[in-house]
Amino acid sequence: MKNDLHFDIDIPNNLFNKMVQEREDIGYYNLPSQSLDKLERFEKKFEKKHKNIQNIAVIGIGGSSLGTKAIYNFIKSSKPLKRKLYFLESTDPSTLQNLINDIDIKNTHFLVVSKSGSTIETISIFKYIYNIVNRDALYFSFITEKQSKLHKFAKSIGAKSIFIPQNVGGRFSVLSNIGLLPLKLVGVDIYKLLEGAKRMQVSFFNDGYIKNTLLKKATYVATNYNRYNINTIFAYSQSLKYFCEWFVQLWGESLGKKQNSSSLNVGLTPIGLIGPKDQHSFLQLIMEGVRNKSVTFIMVDDFRLDINIPNISLKHLEELNNINNIAFNTLINKQAKATLKSLQEIDIPIDVITLPTIDELYIGELIYYYELLTSAVGILLDINTYNQPGVENGKIILKEMLK
Amino acid sequence: MKNDLHFDIDIPNNLFNKMVQEREDIGYYNLPSQSLDKLERFEKKFEKKHKNIQNIAVIGIGGSSLGTKAIYNFIKSSKPLKRKLYFLESTDPSTLQNLINDIDIKNTHFLVVSKSGSTIETISIFKYIYNIVNRDALYFSFITEKQSKLHKFAKSIGAKSIFIPQNVGGRFSVLSNIGLLPLKLVGVDIYKLLEGAKRMQVSFFNDGYIKNTLLKKATYVATNYNRYNINTIFAYSQSLKYFCEWFVQLWGESLGKKQNSSSLNVGLTPIGLIGPKDQHSFLQLIMEGVRNKSVTFIMVDDFRLDINIPNISLKHLEELNNINNIAFNTLINKQAKATLKSLQEIDIPIDVITLPTIDELYIGELIYYYELLTSAVGILLDINTYNQPGVENGKIILKEMLK
Repeated sequence: MKNDLHFDIDIPNNLFNKMVQEREDIGYYNLPSQSLDKLERFEKKFEKKHKNIQNIAVIGIGGSSLGTKAIYNFIKSSKPLKRKLYFLESTDPSTLQNLINDIDIKNTHFLVVSKSGSTIETISIFKYIYNIVNRDALYFSFITEKQSKLHKFAKSIGAKSIFIPQNVGGRFSVLSNIGLLPLKLVGVDIYKLLEGAKRMQVSFFNDGYIKNTLLKKATYVATNYNRYNINTIFAYSQSLKYFCEWFVQLWGESLGKKQNSSSLNVGLTPIGLIGPKDQHSFLQLIMEGVRNKSVTFIMVDDFRLDINIPNISLKHLEELNNINNIAFNTLINKQAKATLKSLQEIDIPIDVITLPTIDELYIGELIYYYELLTSAVGILLDINTYNQPGVENGKIILKEMLK
Repeated sequence: MKNDLHFDIDIPNNLFNKMVQEREDIGYYNLPSQSLDKLERFEKKFEKKHKNIQNIAVIGIGGSSLGTKAIYNFIKSSKPLKRKLYFLESTDPSTLQNLINDIDIKNTHFLVVSKSGSTIETISIFKYIYNIVNRDALYFSFITEKQSKLHKFAKSIGAKSIFIPQNVGGRFSVLSNIGLLPLKLVGVDIYKLLEGAKRMQVSFFNDGYIKNTLLKKATYVATNYNRYNINTIFAYSQSLKYFCEWFVQLWGESLGKKQNSSSLNVGLTPIGLIGPKDQHSFLQLIMEGVRNKSVTFIMVDDFRLDINIPNISLKHLEELNNINNIAFNTLINKQAKATLKSLQEIDIPIDVITLPTIDELYIGELIYYYELLTSAVGILLDINTYNQPGVENGKIILKEMLK
């Protein structure tokens, strides 16, 4: 991928070193080099035992599903996969009921994903489905922390578990077994995915092309967090819709915090937009509303799909003959560039990420790039990027209500 | 529906009168009382001619599809509809190709929706499909302005058109034929939908329960637009996901404007969240980030679906026995209330909308409520709520690029 910044700023001296230091403790940094032995053994046994299974269903919420969904939807937009992947995450009764009606349960294997096993949405949905299949453990595998309560439960019913490293937080976990196992089982090339992440890692830590760009962008964003408090991604491909949702969690939950030194409330608000659709929705606000938004364009250079607007002249609509014979691939990127150009005329920070095409390599790069960027901004904002104390109170209140 | 505000403010004297005045010129206000004769005649002929058609596909973008999608997805989550409704809006080649592969074109009728007929996404997709069906006009009907170029084109190929009133803007058009025709054709009860809108209209203009609440909320939002620049909806039902997208366009595109008197850039940033999913994503930022967000909870009181968490005690997970035997309907609303309670402890404006259940009546109320609210805020911000000059420049640049 490429990343062009349309702004400039000096990078603080110690920022890079602080990231090198963080890498020692924060587990996600080193996921690109993890051993896949256990995952491969798990998969081999799975394929032997369940070779006719047609669907995988993830029961998990937040960090246990958003990243997997992002990669799955990106890849499946451009190539057929060997299995379908479903996500069960909502306690909304209609949604749950409709999903269960849609899924052919007999041909589905469920992956229950929770670090601790105490996630209320995950366990309530698990109980519901466990009941439907008459408590048959064969339908389930578990992705959790070693020796967690969920792991112990899995053992007690004779179901398989695979583990998440303890120092990898939920929203940074997509390149751990949380994402890798379901993606592997449906046929996503996880080796290429990790290779992409690895390329980004090497480029960043070994003085490659992304190092300065990423540090500069982080510095600009963090320094101007008051003025440009909203960071939008404007992705010109529907296949990045769930990537945007993943980004919203990563950015919002990591960076919305009390400052370590001052306990001031800081934070940056993430918004995901899809082009050209949101030109007809959100663009007006960026152009003429309060100038508090940065925009990162993401474009796919080559969709590898040759479909053109046919050469048809429509009576009374001849002014639109200018799109005849143009590839949709060309049209959507021209739309992105026209929007970019119109936004360059106002005083907001803009940058452009270009993915060469839709495949595992580039989404691996993009994911790892955004994780590094989030870490860098967190350091500059002087916050703890990796916790989420603000959501605990609601959980305590709910527990009280359920008594 | 009910709307409880957790804040108070004095309403400016002339706000209500200005809305009464606006109602004379701005077409959407009066849509609840429109005549449906033409739509009914259109439908009768359609059902005679196309009774075996199984799918309706809307070719349209922005205001031509968002509202229809919002209502369709809300209603279909709780009752079976007689036809499927598809939306073709993206120039993304993969999305377009995948959609066309999914749709059984032979059994589909396409509604081409564009006020002017010059919407580039709509016409390029139309041309593509028109070519696939060998320019057979039978596949298409048109929803457009009378005497528009698109209407003239439709006549030239012998296809039917139905019209949009000239004084109804795109993002306020869902209760015109733009939304009503596709919704009617798939079996949504549009009479109940309009009845809901009418109830809201009467309640507002004839001194009913909503008048003060709505004016107060608009005043609070507009007065504090600098401090609370981001307005989030936290909807506790997946069925409201596309309602949130509709809201984002309505709010963002209407209110992000240069002020009439000062040409200052004003505006409010809309964000749609879905609970409980986004408790695991965005909630941390609301709680501990910059306190620049208001939150409107939307809850569905009764999903009318009796599914419970079974009474299963899981070994090692006994602490979660507190959810046993609880209805998912109860759980999701308790989750909403727990989140609400935790947010009440910080200094942000909160209000709660409760929909009695999922049906046409209440989504009709909700839609009209938000339209009125947007108009009221627009008046207070001293802007033109109904135009979108900021998106024109991009269109001109694109035209240049396509030369």
